[in-house]
Amino acid sequence: MIPTKFDWKKLQSFCTDVFKAAGVPEENAEIVAESLVEADLRGVDSHGVVRTSIYLKRIEEGMIQSDAKFFKHSETDCMAVLDGNNNFGSVVGTEALNIALEKAEKSGIGVVGVKNSNHFGTGAYYAKKAIEQGFVLLVLSNASQTMPPTGGIKPFLGTNPLAVGVPTGTDVPFILDMATSVVARGKIIVASQKGEVIPEGWAIDKEGKPTTDADAALEGSVLPLGGPKGYGISMFIDILAGVLTGAGFGKYVNNMYENWDDPQNVGHFFLAININNFMPIDHFKARMDQYITDIKSEPKAPEVDEIFIPGELELRRTLEKKADGIDLPEKVVHELIEIGKKYGIDFTQAALSTTFNTEVSK
Amino acid sequence: MIPTKFDWKKLQSFCTDVFKAAGVPEENAEIVAESLVEADLRGVDSHGVVRTSIYLKRIEEGMIQSDAKFFKHSETDCMAVLDGNNNFGSVVGTEALNIALEKAEKSGIGVVGVKNSNHFGTGAYYAKKAIEQGFVLLVLSNASQTMPPTGGIKPFLGTNPLAVGVPTGTDVPFILDMATSVVARGKIIVASQKGEVIPEGWAIDKEGKPTTDADAALEGSVLPLGGPKGYGISMFIDILAGVLTGAGFGKYVNNMYENWDDPQNVGHFFLAININNFMPIDHFKARMDQYITDIKSEPKAPEVDEIFIPGELELRRTLEKKADGIDLPEKVVHELIEIGKKYGIDFTQAALSTTFNTEVSK
Repeated sequence: MIPTKFDWKKLQSFCTDVFKAAGVPEENAEIVAESLVEADLRGVDSHGVVRTSIYLKRIEEGMIQSDAKFFKHSETDCMAVLDGNNNFGSVVGTEALNIALEKAEKSGIGVVGVKNSNHFGTGAYYAKKAIEQGFVLLVLSNASQTMPPTGGIKPFLGTNPLAVGVPTGTDVPFILDMATSVVARGKIIVASQKGEVIPEGWAIDKEGKPTTDADAALEGSVLPLGGPKGYGISMFIDILAGVLTGAGFGKYVNNMYENWDDPQNVGHFFLAININNFMPIDHFKARMDQYITDIKSEPKAPEVDEIFIPGELELRRTLEKKADGIDLPEKVVHELIEIGKKYGIDFTQAALSTTFNTEVSK
Repeated sequence: MIPTKFDWKKLQSFCTDVFKAAGVPEENAEIVAESLVEADLRGVDSHGVVRTSIYLKRIEEGMIQSDAKFFKHSETDCMAVLDGNNNFGSVVGTEALNIALEKAEKSGIGVVGVKNSNHFGTGAYYAKKAIEQGFVLLVLSNASQTMPPTGGIKPFLGTNPLAVGVPTGTDVPFILDMATSVVARGKIIVASQKGEVIPEGWAIDKEGKPTTDADAALEGSVLPLGGPKGYGISMFIDILAGVLTGAGFGKYVNNMYENWDDPQNVGHFFLAININNFMPIDHFKARMDQYITDIKSEPKAPEVDEIFIPGELELRRTLEKKADGIDLPEKVVHELIEIGKKYGIDFTQAALSTTFNTEVSK
């Protein structure tokens, strides 16, 4: 038996150490590891430590330059374009966030367009940091092709995500972090593995016909959220994050898993808003709290216990997982054990001691 | 028989004259009339001249101050808060747009938050103007309550719309203009009138249960686009346009048709981007054109003749209606004839001469 429950801090240290051992400068290794573990804590496993192996492989293959310097250009008091120079997406994204926050602090608004970046993890990672400093953040990123345009049958757009972070007066900030697809492709993979059908409207088959067959859907495309509206939103995100910044867009954003000839050239768009330029932040927080109290007091459907605001469930999961540990699938554990061996770092040290001991004693 | 097809310019003149006769300053009357007719031209009839009567009624009842002066505060080089002082939404919105464009011209980015405004018509109206001046625009507005939060059963959020305008090198700019509901409530009204069922997922009944009965849906609520995702987007729009600006939000945005005690206190959020601060605009336009060419060249589903970009169909409709006239339902024509009589302006003069003559000769 191998351990499958891990301490989040030790997991983060393990990832940091592995990336450092792979030649990533320490401060960058820390950012990437934090970004991965935070996704696991929020329950967004697809963006969690499961990505350690693909990130390492892209470093090894020269597809990510983990020590590359950034370049800023076209700078004004309220905006800049950041050339990520093909460093890690989360490292480039963190730099972009910091520039946006600095500019917003000074001018009220900070916009940073980013090019030559890579997959930047979850948008929530940046939203949370902006909230901690008292700012509103909107962050957009494009991604490699997974969704057809409305009327099309082949993947053309990415599931281009958007994330929004808004401070509140309580412990529960507003964090919306969503892909512009109907569902994550991962849910279709799970349905396929379980032999289940998927609901109508999730996907089309490779001929472009609506399908409820998960396997046919995986050969086809996941659909944009809400038909033409999601198509429009996804395209708008690609325009701001990609076309405007000088990054790739549409078919010029390369797939992290499949393309080993070129960097991804992902683009991002950060908009930071200094609340104090609009109204005193305490007043704003009181208004947010009123808003949330109002929503949560609304009459509920029969089977509903509670109305949640975006990010609330993810926060609960984070607190639970910080207390009880992060569950990882055996496959991922094996992969991380092997990665650890390669770099001389013992992954099982990251297991929750209780779990580890229990398992070992069996 | 009465005429039902109208010349767009004459229709616009009629509306301008009526608003002037109702005491609206000329430049404001022109903006409101243009905004209404443009909605009709784009095929968004719900936001067209059908609204003339409710706008006039709100003026008469003191719910809109059509000559109110605006106030700017909290201004920096890249942002401002505009107090619309309860003038017409489209007049306040036009002022906000102009301030945002001026600031973007100077600083690269222009953000204007707006409070104490009214329903501002279609977002496309502002997107089109920004595009004509070479800017990218994102515009958000909140609205009075029509949609429940996810898990709720009563209208709480507005269908809070978002619009985006992006210049291209061709005659077809990118204009996305959408409500954050699954469909316009108007489509459910039409289904009810025809005695048709509505698709699952459009609406819930007044107990919060999913319904395909159009009448039950009208007593219940239209649902947010894509479930929790649309709920999150709608809430985010309400936060930027309402909570942040000092306008109403959630239940504090008043219904234009039902509340005759208080102004609406709608809020808007304008973000203008100076493309030249990111890259030379000609280069940007070439990238947009490549993007659109790529999308339109994608393989199509069997029943699909063409892949459209957001705003493309609306532009075609505009050109058709400019050439062939705007059709108005008889009920609206009767209403406008009566309004004309009240202010001493002959509405039938706006009919397309051919239509009018034909109809009269019958």
